[in-house]
Amino acid sequence: MDKGTIYEGNIPKEINVSQVTIKDDFWSKTQKLVTDVVIPFQEDILNDRVEGVEKSHAIENFRIAAGETKGKFYGMVFQDSDLAKWIEGVGYSLAIKSDKELEKRTDEIINSIAKAQQKDGYLNTYFTIKEPEKRWQNLLECHELYCAGHMMEAAVAYYEATGKDKLLRVMERMARHIAERFGIDKERGIPGHQEIEIGLMKMYKTTKKQGYKDLARYFIDERGRNPDYFKEELEKRGWVHFGQYGMDAEDTQYNQSHTTVYEQKEAVGHSVRAVYMYTAMADLAAEDKDERLFEACETLWNNMVNKRMYITGGIGSTVSGEAFTIDYDLPNDTVYAETCASIGLVFFAKQMLKSRADGKYADVMERALYNGIISGMQLDGKKFFYVNPLEVNPGISGVLYGHKHVLPERPGWYACACCPPNLVRIMTSLGKYAWDESEDTIYSHLFIGQDARLEKADITIESRYPWTGEVDYRVKSKSDKPFTVAIHIPGYVKDEKVTVNGEVFDIEGNKKDGYLYIHRIWADADSIEIRFELPVRKVYANQNVMEDAGCVALMRGPIVYCFEGIDNGSNLQSIRISNIENAKISMVDEGVLSGNVILKLKGSKLVSSEELYSEEPPRVEEVSITAIPYYTWGNRGVNQMRVWMPVLPCI
Amino acid sequence: MDKGTIYEGNIPKEINVSQVTIKDDFWSKTQKLVTDVVIPFQEDILNDRVEGVEKSHAIENFRIAAGETKGKFYGMVFQDSDLAKWIEGVGYSLAIKSDKELEKRTDEIINSIAKAQQKDGYLNTYFTIKEPEKRWQNLLECHELYCAGHMMEAAVAYYEATGKDKLLRVMERMARHIAERFGIDKERGIPGHQEIEIGLMKMYKTTKKQGYKDLARYFIDERGRNPDYFKEELEKRGWVHFGQYGMDAEDTQYNQSHTTVYEQKEAVGHSVRAVYMYTAMADLAAEDKDERLFEACETLWNNMVNKRMYITGGIGSTVSGEAFTIDYDLPNDTVYAETCASIGLVFFAKQMLKSRADGKYADVMERALYNGIISGMQLDGKKFFYVNPLEVNPGISGVLYGHKHVLPERPGWYACACCPPNLVRIMTSLGKYAWDESEDTIYSHLFIGQDARLEKADITIESRYPWTGEVDYRVKSKSDKPFTVAIHIPGYVKDEKVTVNGEVFDIEGNKKDGYLYIHRIWADADSIEIRFELPVRKVYANQNVMEDAGCVALMRGPIVYCFEGIDNGSNLQSIRISNIENAKISMVDEGVLSGNVILKLKGSKLVSSEELYSEEPPRVEEVSITAIPYYTWGNRGVNQMRVWMPVLPCI
Repeated sequence: MDKGTIYEGNIPKEINVSQVTIKDDFWSKTQKLVTDVVIPFQEDILNDRVEGVEKSHAIENFRIAAGETKGKFYGMVFQDSDLAKWIEGVGYSLAIKSDKELEKRTDEIINSIAKAQQKDGYLNTYFTIKEPEKRWQNLLECHELYCAGHMMEAAVAYYEATGKDKLLRVMERMARHIAERFGIDKERGIPGHQEIEIGLMKMYKTTKKQGYKDLARYFIDERGRNPDYFKEELEKRGWVHFGQYGMDAEDTQYNQSHTTVYEQKEAVGHSVRAVYMYTAMADLAAEDKDERLFEACETLWNNMVNKRMYITGGIGSTVSGEAFTIDYDLPNDTVYAETCASIGLVFFAKQMLKSRADGKYADVMERALYNGIISGMQLDGKKFFYVNPLEVNPGISGVLYGHKHVLPERPGWYACACCPPNLVRIMTSLGKYAWDESEDTIYSHLFIGQDARLEKADITIESRYPWTGEVDYRVKSKSDKPFTVAIHIPGYVKDEKVTVNGEVFDIEGNKKDGYLYIHRIWADADSIEIRFELPVRKVYANQNVMEDAGCVALMRGPIVYCFEGIDNGSNLQSIRISNIENAKISMVDEGVLSGNVILKLKGSKLVSSEELYSEEPPRVEEVSITAIPYYTWGNRGVNQMRVWMPVLPCI
Repeated sequence: MDKGTIYEGNIPKEINVSQVTIKDDFWSKTQKLVTDVVIPFQEDILNDRVEGVEKSHAIENFRIAAGETKGKFYGMVFQDSDLAKWIEGVGYSLAIKSDKELEKRTDEIINSIAKAQQKDGYLNTYFTIKEPEKRWQNLLECHELYCAGHMMEAAVAYYEATGKDKLLRVMERMARHIAERFGIDKERGIPGHQEIEIGLMKMYKTTKKQGYKDLARYFIDERGRNPDYFKEELEKRGWVHFGQYGMDAEDTQYNQSHTTVYEQKEAVGHSVRAVYMYTAMADLAAEDKDERLFEACETLWNNMVNKRMYITGGIGSTVSGEAFTIDYDLPNDTVYAETCASIGLVFFAKQMLKSRADGKYADVMERALYNGIISGMQLDGKKFFYVNPLEVNPGISGVLYGHKHVLPERPGWYACACCPPNLVRIMTSLGKYAWDESEDTIYSHLFIGQDARLEKADITIESRYPWTGEVDYRVKSKSDKPFTVAIHIPGYVKDEKVTVNGEVFDIEGNKKDGYLYIHRIWADADSIEIRFELPVRKVYANQNVMEDAGCVALMRGPIVYCFEGIDNGSNLQSIRISNIENAKISMVDEGVLSGNVILKLKGSKLVSSEELYSEEPPRVEEVSITAIPYYTWGNRGVNQMRVWMPVLPCI
């Protein structure tokens, strides 16, 4: 049987969004919010129908490029990608929830996109409308390949959901256009912002056309082969696009072109570029069973996840370049931790799972999904964070130098609107992250309540996870041959009890790397019941993390908790968590936090003299304190927030 | 007798530098370093004779303006002030240590300055050489009044030391030139950088000419009367000097012109501008016995010292505008705490003492002098800090965004060389800060070993302060009338024992606001002996100071201690101070720290698992830790440093 270590078995196939129906107390709500609120809201924005937010003009740009209307290009050079990400989200949403009107409107948009495509296959509204003579000269700054990559992802998603291939054909033409221009024996070129590698891999898996994978391979292998590539490009073209806000052609770490991907040992530079590239690398490694490439991914994974990741699954410690910094530099209040970067981290983890079914990847997916990703969206689905801090202090956060980027409240929309559409596409395609299926094994990566229609079986998961430790699988086999159901048990679970059809299942002999392997001939109504405790856990950071020394973060299940001023009064920094054994766990049943489990526990508060500096030790007062799920912070107005709290007795 | 509360008695006179000879284990060394190393070093720099440091050109600018040599202006628009501060320092140094050669060279420089003065009295090399048509049009950015103020201070210092009045006369002509231009019934104008107010007050006290005080009064009272002054100036002139690095005419808080000084309730804006202005305000308040102005000073003092000052006497929490931020915002690692600002704080404190002999002012003088000011100078006198952090972390400090300004080592010299010359002038004029003398009272503000030749008595102080709590005064009276010797007892001293001629002196009845008032007819060999304990003290910050919550700083006497990696290994953040009762106090007798008392104490170190996040609490190891005086940090190579340390048991 396939215990999916590299590459002893066959490579699992990714499943299609339409194969899964999420039915989950936690995620259905979020998915519904995305399909019913966010997607229509973003459609209005993309159509410039929303007052008081940055004009998008993304659809209008395509109409102009298509010759359907007259006008000027407006927006960022990568404005096309906003529409692409929305269409990708629409594709997934139609797969999970039919909507003829939405589909009709999207078809019309796709018609405009098709018309906007040039005879030679080129597609990009900025250069088509504004500077046709400058196309393909500034890969460093101008995002032509990036926008193409996102549109490829959109094309595949829309095709999978609707069977309509118009956009897919458009992007196949664009892919050929790109392939004819760039390659080993052609013009050397690499994207300034990695993304197309992911799009091409999806095109390859959907169309089975080897050429798309080869082009992705080219962009991955070419990267960093000539570290001066962008410098030479700049000299050759002699103009810059963004001016003073432009990219520094010398800063090769920023876009991970400082050396080949095989020689890169640390996660550096712009964090979204990094994880998008790692995602394509891991995908390619699995598809090609390329152990060397997988090892390169593993090295970068280990550095990022073991030394440069927040407990929330946030990555990228500094606003300067939205980038990684150095090992263990994880400031809580000046953090960047862009929502998109955590989403990219999940992309990467999911692709790593294809080469090796190891719980460490699924655990990181959980960490990011339940914390640092959904924290990016207001609970009403109408406002969004780019930056996901682990500490905010009113009067400082969003105001003072070094803190201006750390907003204490979610704003409505952004001129550079990358995060909200990214949230849409991951929330609508959640099912994809829950499963993999190989010839002889079904992998379940996430405890999400759902119906999954897989090749070998239909599986229903019933669960009130993450709030309770009860997860039931019902397996309805479609095969009379034996096969394996491999279920990921989260790394923090120490005491799971598992029964199959009511009989105790031997975990010892059947658990490997965080996956429980159940191999048998399945009937059409087999059941697997998993039970485990969900205590409140004190988590300590490595002492090399300066900001967290002497502090703990509270977690329960995959949920990271935080403390807000509205529940705990002023000066969160002077509150000390005492023992957590007495923590009262309760589900909120009304108000904005309803449906969430909050923690009430005893704590101490240090009260000092009025003086600025005094020899009188602070007085210690007993207080009751309340912790809420991190992802729900900032939904009750501007107030102080902290994840990491000092403890008494300290350590 | 005068217990100097406002304004029941007469206003004490400041004494002259030449009245005092510092003979002190602690300060003589520093003073000698300044006179023998720093002043000659700076003279070489001002003459552009030092390789590998930013060219100064300050003296050459005057020679060119004087027509003695040909050439272009080079340097900042306020380059003249570097020379002015140096001459002021030279003046004080000649008063404490004759040096005919230095005096001769300085006379020659003053000759050039005199020749550089224009017929109408105007003196400023930038506008004389480079843009004569633009003078007096850009008070916001161009520092003409600022440079004049520094040259006035230089003129007074040089005159007091040498009796030579050439520069004084030059600056009197410049003062008249300014007075003829600016005033209530003339052109309205205020300096973009306050300083001239201090210079004018010194000119007034030296020449007794009322006009200089009136002009200082005008600049103080005019400030903020029209908050749009600089905006209107910009509109009128229609050009900017610094371009993108220039001053924002709308940012009126930056230069404290947002409202009148009487309406200002908080210390805001550029911290050096602020304390220079407060200094002149306090001086003027005392000279005019102006209680309203004194109350304005007191309000600003209390806000700054009780809510916006580091334990080291540093002020200005942010590099952005080198400015104050908000109450209790005192980050240790992104701090600014410019050396010049702490020096200005001492100027301010000293002027407040003239209106009210209150220990709180003298305590702040001590705090800044023994900590945040001398930390600005390398122990060899050759390198200097602008920024005086309370925490540095190699790899982050001086490197990462938000930390670039916080250097882990003192650099050699700066293009904008304000701090080193400021250090020179305060170190050479230290005697001025130790005393005040009124008709019937001699005030001793600082326990510095010295011979003071005052009007009513010659007083010798013998002391190994701050390392021991033994201070002996020998009073040789010159008067047969009774008078008071008022001695400041530092605020942290709780148990002083005082004898006068060997007899126990009643402290209870004779101590007020931190001053001990000894009133008697003095003989010609009376002695006052003061004895007190100097335990190591744990100091707690107000809980509103987020960065210091749960931490203590160690102090002994006026000395703030810090911990460096070189003594304590890596991860200072994981070290916990246990009880300090067992602290071993020892004087270092060799190496770069020789002559300093260091502390050796038991501590604990938290050692965590290798994992980034773990449920396993850190292991606690017993360690011996070493604390050194804060001002000596960064003298042994780049390493981690912290002032505020967590404690066990954590209160």
